[in-house]
Amino acid sequence: MSKPKVLLVLYEGKDHARQEPKLLGCIENELGIRDFVESYGYELVSTTSKDPVGSSEVDKHLEDAEVVITTPFYPAYITKERIAEAPKLKICITAGVGSDHVDLNAANERKITVAEVTGSNVVSVAEHVVMTILDLVRNFVPAHEQAMAGGWDIAAVAKDTYDLEDKVVATVGCGRIGYRVLERLVAFNPKKLLYYDYQDLPAAAAEKINKASELFNGKGDILHRVEKLEDMLSQADVVTINCPLHEGSKGLFNKEMISHMKDGAWLVNTARGAICIEQDVADAVTLGKLRGYGGDVWYPQPAPDSHPWRHFRNKYGGGNAMTPHVSGTSLDAQARYAAGVKELLRAYFEKTFDYEPQHLIVIDGDYATKAYGNRK
Amino acid sequence: MSKPKVLLVLYEGKDHARQEPKLLGCIENELGIRDFVESYGYELVSTTSKDPVGSSEVDKHLEDAEVVITTPFYPAYITKERIAEAPKLKICITAGVGSDHVDLNAANERKITVAEVTGSNVVSVAEHVVMTILDLVRNFVPAHEQAMAGGWDIAAVAKDTYDLEDKVVATVGCGRIGYRVLERLVAFNPKKLLYYDYQDLPAAAAEKINKASELFNGKGDILHRVEKLEDMLSQADVVTINCPLHEGSKGLFNKEMISHMKDGAWLVNTARGAICIEQDVADAVTLGKLRGYGGDVWYPQPAPDSHPWRHFRNKYGGGNAMTPHVSGTSLDAQARYAAGVKELLRAYFEKTFDYEPQHLIVIDGDYATKAYGNRK
Ligand SMILES: NC(=O)c1ccc[n+]([C@@H]2O[C@H](COP(=O)([O-])OP(=O)(O)OC[C@H]3O[C@@H](n4cnc5c(N)ncnc54)[C@H](O)[C@@H]3O)[C@@H](O)[C@H]2O)c1
Ligand SMILES: NC(=O)c1ccc[n+]([C@@H]2O[C@H](COP(=O)([O-])OP(=O)(O)OC[C@H]3O[C@@H](n4cnc5c(N)ncnc54)[C@H](O)[C@@H]3O)[C@@H](O)[C@H]2O)c1
Repeated sequence: MSKPKVLLVLYEGKDHARQEPKLLGCIENELGIRDFVESYGYELVSTTSKDPVGSSEVDKHLEDAEVVITTPFYPAYITKERIAEAPKLKICITAGVGSDHVDLNAANERKITVAEVTGSNVVSVAEHVVMTILDLVRNFVPAHEQAMAGGWDIAAVAKDTYDLEDKVVATVGCGRIGYRVLERLVAFNPKKLLYYDYQDLPAAAAEKINKASELFNGKGDILHRVEKLEDMLSQADVVTINCPLHEGSKGLFNKEMISHMKDGAWLVNTARGAICIEQDVADAVTLGKLRGYGGDVWYPQPAPDSHPWRHFRNKYGGGNAMTPHVSGTSLDAQARYAAGVKELLRAYFEKTFDYEPQHLIVIDGDYATKAYGNRK
Repeated sequence: MSKPKVLLVLYEGKDHARQEPKLLGCIENELGIRDFVESYGYELVSTTSKDPVGSSEVDKHLEDAEVVITTPFYPAYITKERIAEAPKLKICITAGVGSDHVDLNAANERKITVAEVTGSNVVSVAEHVVMTILDLVRNFVPAHEQAMAGGWDIAAVAKDTYDLEDKVVATVGCGRIGYRVLERLVAFNPKKLLYYDYQDLPAAAAEKINKASELFNGKGDILHRVEKLEDMLSQADVVTINCPLHEGSKGLFNKEMISHMKDGAWLVNTARGAICIEQDVADAVTLGKLRGYGGDVWYPQPAPDSHPWRHFRNKYGGGNAMTPHVSGTSLDAQARYAAGVKELLRAYFEKTFDYEPQHLIVIDGDYATKAYGNRK
């Protein structure tokens, strides 16, 4: 009898994997789990071949995979069709945070567990958000490009450079990442910090932000929850998106929604590319409604070279601060999500199923988290 | 009798000045002070022609200038020789912070007042420092370049991407900017925050950092003063330079001093270019001692296209986050330093001489500040 199979889909590391052994999240280093998986009598099949659906290595091995491990950085989209082709599949594990690349409704129907390593890279992403906000507001990219290209034209850069201080910053979604972004922004002395979320922040968490603001800026009443997204957008100089992708957030930032934003505002999205309508966002920057857009998530991934987010610029040649989905895969984060995957596997292999509750997205045919809870 | 003269040296705004009226700091907009100066019976001469010493417009007008206004972004170097050619000069005003482009000892000998708009852009620079630290640690530049150029090679970027969390960050100089950088870093949950300065932080200021750290991270003892610079450098993952340029800091970061830094550390300098030996810094990054260098100050300014800081990269193609001295000239900062210059002029024109004490660098033949106090 052949061994039960664990299918692992990761991005390619090539030379980089050899140069940096801490690069656990690539196919060459396999999250450091090969011996561990084999010690439980499972076969580990790892591949980078995920597209197109129907004829990749992923499709070939799904037939007898019991466990599939994927990442959001280089996602193997586990569609309804693929789930139908995977009769033995019991658990999908996301090495990272965000499991929207799995069709969660289809997983529920088949009572497949979907788990991720919640929290493993939320600090990394929160740092990336603050960096991206500063890069946009302070107009870093054109400044750096000039430094590298030669010349000395300060006015060309300064005319689109602002301070973050005294701006209104708003987050769409105030879970682990959104909240950490707010924590990191308080000391910058913003005018206001706003959030929009289905769930209220715990009172102690909200109080902490206000207390820190009192300490740093002498302003104790900095944080406000806004009931209606459009109302929040109309007040914010900077908007950062930190909610999961689901039916309720897919395409949320389209032309109509963007029209509620302040003229000349900045938009940052490190959550998921498909939360924004790509052409609408690019147009908003190109035509001057927004001053800039930055983030590191795209749809699909890998993003084609023709993706509009690779090419847009604002009228002054700046306003683009995109990165290729790396915010959650810093070397520090890789160590954490690799360890988290191992722990999930242990609970599965040993049939204790004592998963950390916060790691569960769907289980036993239902949603385990409210964060995707608006999904039918 | 001809009118007494105010000489104003600013960078060129060209089309940018027309596009953005808030761009006060360029020659076309003259800090918005022309009417004000003329209303006091002075003539305002403004120019961008500052080099070479001896034959520029600056040299031509120094002969009968009573007031000279310059900026650090596009500095007219007010050397000993130029001061000798300016018999009527009474006050040098820096539109911004940092008056090292004036020979302060020569000014003292002639009892010329040197004043700047202390504090006017310290928030702007502190934001730029935190941005630059994040850009280096999180490897933003190669990531963004890949996003723009096309392709999808996450490993190429991730292998040099880290989190700021849990790193040791150290500042050389903990005055207005250095302290504001520390305030902004606390919420990032650093391992330690260190500072080196001739002056001790006021107890309340130090306590504030520790209190914020307790609030955010449950670690109350985060901030430490280090007595010896070399000791601090050997502990720090990130070093940020925030002291003035003077005899005691000129060329401070040379090969020998850098050798005390941790292997693979990051260095950020938004204070003054001449605090670092340019080739030693570039070599340290190119040869792998440092992981990266970033900042926005150069010597001389404008920096020639051949300046080594325009071209260095670390072995992975990143590690450079330079900008052309724009951190202190955001549009928000320009409004503040333009207003500050006006107020200094008023005190001079009206002969009340009630300058804000913190704006004075040298007066009545002596240093008015301890920050340049190690200067003979
Ligand atoms: N770029 C990356 O590398 C990276 C890494 C980690 C996570 N992420 C993305 O960020 C998302 C958030 O991560 P997290 O750890 O903060 O999750 P979380 O579950 O802790 O918080 C998400 C919050 O969003 C709220 N929310 C859900 N739908 C919303 C909507 N339509 N409008 C407003 N709020 C909504 C939820 O109520 C919850 O409070 C993940 O789902 C993932 O898509 C990206
Ligand atoms: N990039 C920019 O646009 C920009 C803008 C503003 C200021 N700056 C630079 O930053 C410097 C600091 O500005 P600030 O407002 O914080 O000044 P500040 O006077 O408030 O603080 C400077 C601190 O550095 C300390 N110091 C002096 N020499 C030192 C040395 N050799 N080693 C360690 N500490 C030393 C002083 O004791 C003081 O505490 C300015 O002098 C200027 O050169 C740059």
